[in-house]
Amino acid sequence: MLKKLKQQVFEANLDLPKYGLVTFTWGNVSGIDREKGLVVIKPSGVEYDVMTADDMVVVDLHSGAVVEGSKKPSSDTPTHLELYRQFPDIGGIVHTHSRHATTWAQAGHDLAALGTTHADYFYGSIPCTRLMTDEEIQGEYELETGKVIVETFATRGIKAKDIPAVLVHSHGPFAWGSDPHNAVHNAVVLEEIAYMNLFTYQLNPTAESMQQTLLDKHYLRKHGKNAYYGQ
Amino acid sequence: MLKKLKQQVFEANLDLPKYGLVTFTWGNVSGIDREKGLVVIKPSGVEYDVMTADDMVVVDLHSGAVVEGSKKPSSDTPTHLELYRQFPDIGGIVHTHSRHATTWAQAGHDLAALGTTHADYFYGSIPCTRLMTDEEIQGEYELETGKVIVETFATRGIKAKDIPAVLVHSHGPFAWGSDPHNAVHNAVVLEEIAYMNLFTYQLNPTAESMQQTLLDKHYLRKHGKNAYYGQ
Amino acid sequence: MLKKLKQQVFEANLDLPKYGLVTFTWGNVSGIDREKGLVVIKPSGVEYDVMTADDMVVVDLHSGAVVEGSKKPSSDTPTHLELYRQFPDIGGIVHTHSRHATTWAQAGHDLAALGTTHADYFYGSIPCTRLMTDEEIQGEYELETGKVIVETFATRGIKAKDIPAVLVHSHGPFAWGSDPHNAVHNAVVLEEIAYMNLFTYQLNPTAESMQQTLLDKHYLRKHGKNAYYGQ
Amino acid sequence: MLKKLKQQVFEANLDLPKYGLVTFTWGNVSGIDREKGLVVIKPSGVEYDVMTADDMVVVDLHSGAVVEGSKKPSSDTPTHLELYRQFPDIGGIVHTHSRHATTWAQAGHDLAALGTTHADYFYGSIPCTRLMTDEEIQGEYELETGKVIVETFATRGIKAKDIPAVLVHSHGPFAWGSDPHNAVHNAVVLEEIAYMNLFTYQLNPTAESMQQTLLDKHYLRKHGKNAYYGQ
Repeated sequence: MLKKLKQQVFEANLDLPKYGLVTFTWGNVSGIDREKGLVVIKPSGVEYDVMTADDMVVVDLHSGAVVEGSKKPSSDTPTHLELYRQFPDIGGIVHTHSRHATTWAQAGHDLAALGTTHADYFYGSIPCTRLMTDEEIQGEYELETGKVIVETFATRGIKAKDIPAVLVHSHGPFAWGSDPHNAVHNAVVLEEIAYMNLFTYQLNPTAESMQQTLLDKHYLRKHGKNAYYGQ
Repeated sequence: MLKKLKQQVFEANLDLPKYGLVTFTWGNVSGIDREKGLVVIKPSGVEYDVMTADDMVVVDLHSGAVVEGSKKPSSDTPTHLELYRQFPDIGGIVHTHSRHATTWAQAGHDLAALGTTHADYFYGSIPCTRLMTDEEIQGEYELETGKVIVETFATRGIKAKDIPAVLVHSHGPFAWGSDPHNAVHNAVVLEEIAYMNLFTYQLNPTAESMQQTLLDKHYLRKHGKNAYYGQ
Repeated sequence: MLKKLKQQVFEANLDLPKYGLVTFTWGNVSGIDREKGLVVIKPSGVEYDVMTADDMVVVDLHSGAVVEGSKKPSSDTPTHLELYRQFPDIGGIVHTHSRHATTWAQAGHDLAALGTTHADYFYGSIPCTRLMTDEEIQGEYELETGKVIVETFATRGIKAKDIPAVLVHSHGPFAWGSDPHNAVHNAVVLEEIAYMNLFTYQLNPTAESMQQTLLDKHYLRKHGKNAYYGQ
Repeated sequence: MLKKLKQQVFEANLDLPKYGLVTFTWGNVSGIDREKGLVVIKPSGVEYDVMTADDMVVVDLHSGAVVEGSKKPSSDTPTHLELYRQFPDIGGIVHTHSRHATTWAQAGHDLAALGTTHADYFYGSIPCTRLMTDEEIQGEYELETGKVIVETFATRGIKAKDIPAVLVHSHGPFAWGSDPHNAVHNAVVLEEIAYMNLFTYQLNPTAESMQQTLLDKHYLRKHGKNAYYGQ
């Protein structure tokens, strides 16, 4: 079942240690088959070097029930599912504790667009969520995490497609994309930006977001109908 | 004698350079056989790439006498033994000079719980010990180092099992766990946290410890009787 | 056509990931055949590990038209061409988003000559360009980027040969040299300097440019007619 | 001639990239045969991956004349020779532009002993030299560099054996030891310390040198007649 998607999700998970985004099992990637309403995700707490494509778990988009797989899905599964339900454009999601994005999440700050590296992928600031309430934390925590992310995008009027990442306060980043591979790609970019912005402010504490025209130029030359970057 | 434990301790020592926790021979891992009252530890000043499992030294938990092995045990052995004697739950100990944990030890500051990476492993702040007195330093220094660690946990009312690491002031970290492998695992996490907290404060100098409810949620979903993380 | 130059440009592009200067396809190197008035450059958005020497694109120095190659040239080609046209001494150009040089570009600050590492390669401060105007960004953006670089050197009275790199404000570095290989060499040095200067100011916020005599000594012992470094 | 020493110097030079201390050819190691009054040193500007043991150059300790070797010796040779002449205890010298030690040299600050990592190798602060005068720079620059190092140690009453490294202001580190291998070892330690001290001050701007008793304890348990570290 979903053999191709399982392979994609598996390979995207292996890309996490390859790109230095995870220590131990601190990350998970999922992918969705929209037609079937099924999500494929990494099993919980399994180490990358012993994991196989067959270990990937298939869960139902709406109920969260395990449809196939002998292992428990990632404990973050309810967060992934909520994002897939509310962000219909996205095809893959990744969660990591990558060092610099997590540092920003711990600081509770948005990542402003300070340069073209950011503008090539994210069409504005990458938001950091509000603190969760005790009720949310003590309730269905992982589901509520997804809801807080969705709320953040709704409140700020951001489209998930335009800003394919978020920082969850006191926790770490989630990123997404058109498929699992693209989600990991965006997580790598996020980590690069998080690194550079940290030190940009140390050089220039009053650095401000880049010019809107430059943000437009770089984002739109890679995205949208008039894109001219790449082959 | 203790063939299996020697192999575990040997492999855990090799994990130190693998995870980037040591330069040269600046680290040592030990493990204990509680029934026999014997501790297996790395020999002093032997390089990792020439070391074999047979080089591990067996010492008596109480007297510190070498029971087996042709090499001298790590000079930090008396510290390890004191921790094993006073923390009866632990099965493995590791000492390193890993860059960021050591930086915090040099600064003399505790590591507060700023995010879920911390909360997944440590149930509150990781303490930094007080400065040692001249008498302690000039006396049985390595033993006194262990005593100061134990005093720190007693004074603050912390259980070694809940916070499996400490920063020794002006020196560096010790971490422990259920066995040698788990001790090294915790040392890796400690180093990650030390890195991220350093820069979190640079982004947000007034960052405070995370919400207690979130600390509870993350620690308890991985530890204790209601844990649901992993397989 | 230009088989040897294509191979040089190809190899210089592969050096970018080797030296840790690029993530994904965020960099490009070009080389010029001055006699023929032709520039060889990396294709746009092609990944380094599948790229071959034959993928390199040949463009006309003056018109920018593709003379040979089945792929589109790098979207930064008009910047490269403008630099080749205005800086007649240079034989290779490289653009990256290397972490620390880009951090300085995002901060909008010049890189002052703080030590001999700098002085061995750059004969004074490495300039950061002014912000581009909306007209420039919305016009022929990549060409205008080249013009702003040229303007920066002209306004400050710097020769491209003496300072073979620039920081483009809110964007990232360009470096150049006698050939593609040498351009990459200078980009590596630039990244080293950017790293060290960042932290030099953190140790000493009032650090000033090095003594002119020391700058002269180091630059001139490696460059110019009285050079005595190397074989 | 000096076949064994050439091999040692060659291998010690290769350790520089292995330990991440050099970029390109920015480092050199030498060793001395005190009986013969001959120094073996890396050739100038030769890349590490094409260098052979036979490329090492033999120079006279007193005159600096090349005694054997088809290549020019490192341009820093006169600095090495002056150190060998004035520091009769040392058997090997290394110069690098390693990132963090160089950062401290650019800042013009001493490296205080903030922790036991330092105390295990250096018996007090590692000094940074004064700025050189224009006369010194425009004269026999490399020889004068050696003289300023020697002056620094003499003025401060430091023995080269107790503090086997120095930061040359606006330039970078030199380290030394009992032989070429040991000199590189000390250069690696220096780089670790430079990294950790940089960030220690960011965590604790008023961090002070460690207690003298702790410095004594750690230095003397590894050095001197009562040392008990190692086998």
